[in-house]
Amino acid sequence: MSLTSEEVNFLIYRYLQESGFHHSAFTFGSESLVHRSTINGQDVPPGSLVSFIQKGIQYLEIEANLTKELPAEMTYYRPLDLLSVGR
Amino acid sequence: MSLTSEEVNFLIYRYLQESGFHHSAFTFGSESLVHRSTINGQDVPPGSLVSFIQKGIQYLEIEANLTKELPAEMTYYRPLDLLSVGR
Amino acid sequence: MSLTSEEVNFLIYRYLQESGFHHSAFTFGSESLVHRSTINGQDVPPGSLVSFIQKGIQYLEIEANLTKELPAEMTYYRPLDLLSVGR
Amino acid sequence: MSLTSEEVNFLIYRYLQESGFHHSAFTFGSESLVHRSTINGQDVPPGSLVSFIQKGIQYLEIEANLTKELPAEMTYYRPLDLLSVGR
Repeated sequence: MSLTSEEVNFLIYRYLQESGFHHSAFTFGSESLVHRSTINGQDVPPGSLVSFIQKGIQYLEIEANLTKELPAEMTYYRPLDLLSVGR
Repeated sequence: MSLTSEEVNFLIYRYLQESGFHHSAFTFGSESLVHRSTINGQDVPPGSLVSFIQKGIQYLEIEANLTKELPAEMTYYRPLDLLSVGR
Repeated sequence: MSLTSEEVNFLIYRYLQESGFHHSAFTFGSESLVHRSTINGQDVPPGSLVSFIQKGIQYLEIEANLTKELPAEMTYYRPLDLLSVGR
Repeated sequence: MSLTSEEVNFLIYRYLQESGFHHSAFTFGSESLVHRSTINGQDVPPGSLVSFIQKGIQYLEIEANLTKELPAEMTYYRPLDLLSVGR
């Protein structure tokens, strides 16, 4: 299942609004033309961007445990490290 | 493994820069004070935000296949629908 | 009496705030670093930018009347035309 | 001759562009909808906003000299003070 940039932008726009980054939301809305999106906003639950990222981290944790020999150190990685670890 | 808002903001800031949303990156940088982040940017590979989201989608797809009775329809869902499906 | 860019920026920043252009005021504040200005905001009355421009237009109107032979047409010029007329 | 907010906004938009405030110009363009203006940009010479303000200052200086008893101190005022002096 592929992800379109329209979908990524929509998730970010929602995050900016929900997190109180009102100026960024305005500028991003204008620059990305997210308003012209065909995505139905009502289908996207609050907090979606963070949910997706957290699920992605869980996936990478599982993947790292299955494929790498990283049993002990695993818990010491910060989320952003997982992308490098997963390579 | 929990995700901090600093990490989410850093991933978004990078995405905005990498995707050519220069005005949004500037405004978000100012509004989120992401410059004061202690995250070492060199540890974060390009495209990280999209990678995380895509991994999150994969996770939700697997989860949906394991827990729901959605064998046939599954492929028809769009990424954003998965968050609702997964509830 | 010369005008500094710091003064021009301060007048614009105030105008943006007073006119409800909150996103522009935020971005301009960040980009122009107007917050570091040494101008005492309390010395600057509301509406200063517009007052200055209006006085400038009056000046150019008087100047045009004194130096050009434009008695009849004068009243038909729009403010922005005066800058070209005054050359 | 009255000044419309459309004209003020156009002058500011031009100033932001000419002065290298690209992010502010973008945000202000979106927020003020200055692009929908009927003003013909080619009629507006570069540096118009600053020209108007400077002419406004000259006007206020002359006015202050004519109407107030401020012969000696006059030269010590900064541009922004003139608006208060002129009251």
